[in-house]
Amino acid sequence: MTTVSSARRTLEFGSGKPTILIGERINPTGRRKLADSLARGDFEVLLSEAKRQVEAGADVLDVNVYVEGGDEPSLLREAVTRLMEAVDVPLCLDSANPEALEVALAAYSGRALVNSVTGEDQSLAVVLPLVKRYQAVIVALPLDEGGIPTDAGLRLHIARRIVEAAAGHGIPSTDIVIDCLATAAAVDPRAASVALETVRLVSTELGVNTLLGVSNVSFGLPGRGAINACFAGQAIAAGLTCAIVDPTDPGVVQAVVAADLLAGRDEYGRRYLAHYRKGHTK
Amino acid sequence: MTTVSSARRTLEFGSGKPTILIGERINPTGRRKLADSLARGDFEVLLSEAKRQVEAGADVLDVNVYVEGGDEPSLLREAVTRLMEAVDVPLCLDSANPEALEVALAAYSGRALVNSVTGEDQSLAVVLPLVKRYQAVIVALPLDEGGIPTDAGLRLHIARRIVEAAAGHGIPSTDIVIDCLATAAAVDPRAASVALETVRLVSTELGVNTLLGVSNVSFGLPGRGAINACFAGQAIAAGLTCAIVDPTDPGVVQAVVAADLLAGRDEYGRRYLAHYRKGHTK
Repeated sequence: MTTVSSARRTLEFGSGKPTILIGERINPTGRRKLADSLARGDFEVLLSEAKRQVEAGADVLDVNVYVEGGDEPSLLREAVTRLMEAVDVPLCLDSANPEALEVALAAYSGRALVNSVTGEDQSLAVVLPLVKRYQAVIVALPLDEGGIPTDAGLRLHIARRIVEAAAGHGIPSTDIVIDCLATAAAVDPRAASVALETVRLVSTELGVNTLLGVSNVSFGLPGRGAINACFAGQAIAAGLTCAIVDPTDPGVVQAVVAADLLAGRDEYGRRYLAHYRKGHTK
Repeated sequence: MTTVSSARRTLEFGSGKPTILIGERINPTGRRKLADSLARGDFEVLLSEAKRQVEAGADVLDVNVYVEGGDEPSLLREAVTRLMEAVDVPLCLDSANPEALEVALAAYSGRALVNSVTGEDQSLAVVLPLVKRYQAVIVALPLDEGGIPTDAGLRLHIARRIVEAAAGHGIPSTDIVIDCLATAAAVDPRAASVALETVRLVSTELGVNTLLGVSNVSFGLPGRGAINACFAGQAIAAGLTCAIVDPTDPGVVQAVVAADLLAGRDEYGRRYLAHYRKGHTK
C-alpha cells in the first residue's frame, strides 16, 4: 500500500484499492486563462480550478505552473502554499525543473507526489535524492535518452531500472508510481494498446503503482470525453491504480467508479452506489 | 476471418476488424410486452424491436422466442421468416431446443449464427451436426456438466474441447465463436475479471472469435448503462470480437466505437468519426 498526505488528510492507494483520481486541470498547457493569470502572478484561477476539482471528487491535485518566461520555482512554491490553505487533498508537484520541485517540497506539509523522474541518468541523479530527503512518492516515466519506447516490454525494462535506481537511494517500491505513458491514438493506432499492456506488465512484474494521463490518448480527436472514459475503464481493468483525469468530466468519473466495481476494487460497491445516488450515473 | 450472411448482406468479422454488435432485444426474458405478444402468436412487437435495433446500428439480431408453454420450434421458424422480410441483417438463432434450431436453420436464407452449443457431450452430439449441415457459425458456451467454471483457465479448457469436437465434425475454428460468459458482478465481484481474462485467453490461445452478453454483468445493479458501457470497452481491449448488447443504448454503442478506435480496429477512425458526426458522441 502507498500513502500520500496533506496536513489534514492521508490517502492510501494501491492494488485492490479504489483508483485514485488526480485532477489534471491545474496545468497552463492549453488553458489560456490559467496561463495568463499565472504569468501576472494571479492565483485566483488556479484556486478556483482547485476547488472545482475537489468538489467534483478529485483525491489529489496535480500542480503544474510552467509558463513561458515565468519563474517556475517561485510560482510553484506560491501555488503550493496557497493550495494548502484552500483545499485539503494531497498534492502532486508537477515540474520538469528540479529546483522548482525542491522549493515546493520544502514548502509542502505532508507527503507529496512528485511528478516526475525519468529513466535518464541525469534525471535519476537529481530527482531521487530530493524524493528521499522529503519522503515523497515519485511518479516515474519509463522513457530514457532514447525517447518514449513504443513497445511495452521496453517500457517495463526502463521502469525496472528506475525501481532499482530508487532502491539504491533507499526509496522502497511502494513509494514509486510508474506513469505508463498514454500518447495520442490519433498519431499512433497502437498508442492505447501499448499503454494498457505497459500497465498490465508493470503491475504484474514489478508490483508497483501505475498511472496514466488518461486525456492524452484522445488528443486531436473529436468527442474526447467518450474516448477518455472508455480508456480509463480499460486501464483500470489492466491494473491501473492512479488516473490523471479531468474530475469535472462526469463521464470519466462514471467510468472510473464503474470499472473499480467491475474489478472488485470497490467493496460492496459502496463508492459506485454513492456516486449513483448523487445522480451522476445514468 | 468469419462470415455470416442474410439473403442480401454478408458480414465479415474477427480479430483486428471492428466489433460486431448483436442486438439483444428480441428475447422475451424480462420483456413482458414481447413475451405476451409471442404467446398469442403476434409478431408485431418482435418486428418493431428488430427495426429499432437495425436503425440503431445492430450488425446482427439475436432471435430468442422462448416463452413458457409456447411452441418454440414453430415460433422460431415464423419469427425468422418474418424477420428475413423485415430487415437485411444476418440473424443469430438463439434457442436451447435443437428442434427449434433445426426448423429455423431450414427456413433461413444465408449463413446464420447458432446460439448455442455447450461443452456437454449431449449438446455437442446434437448441435454440431446441425451446424455442419447448414454451414452455420456456432456460438459455444465454455460450460459443461459441472456448470459454469468460475476460473478463466477452466473456461479455456472447455472451449478448447469444443473447438476439437467441432473439428471432428468438420467445422473449422473460424466458424466458432466462444461466449466467454458474462455473469452478474453483483453476485460475484470476480465475475467481470474472469470474463475478461477468458476473452484474453481464448483469443490468444485458440485464435477464435469471442462473444459476451455484455448486459449480464450489470444484472441487479443500478445505473446499468454505465456499467455495460465500461465493460464493453474493457472486453474489446481484451480482444472481444462480438458483443451482444442493446444497440438502442447510445452509451454502450459509444463505448464500442471508442474502444475499437483505441484498439486500432477502426481504420482511420472511420466508424468512430461517422458515429461522432451523427451526434451520438458527446
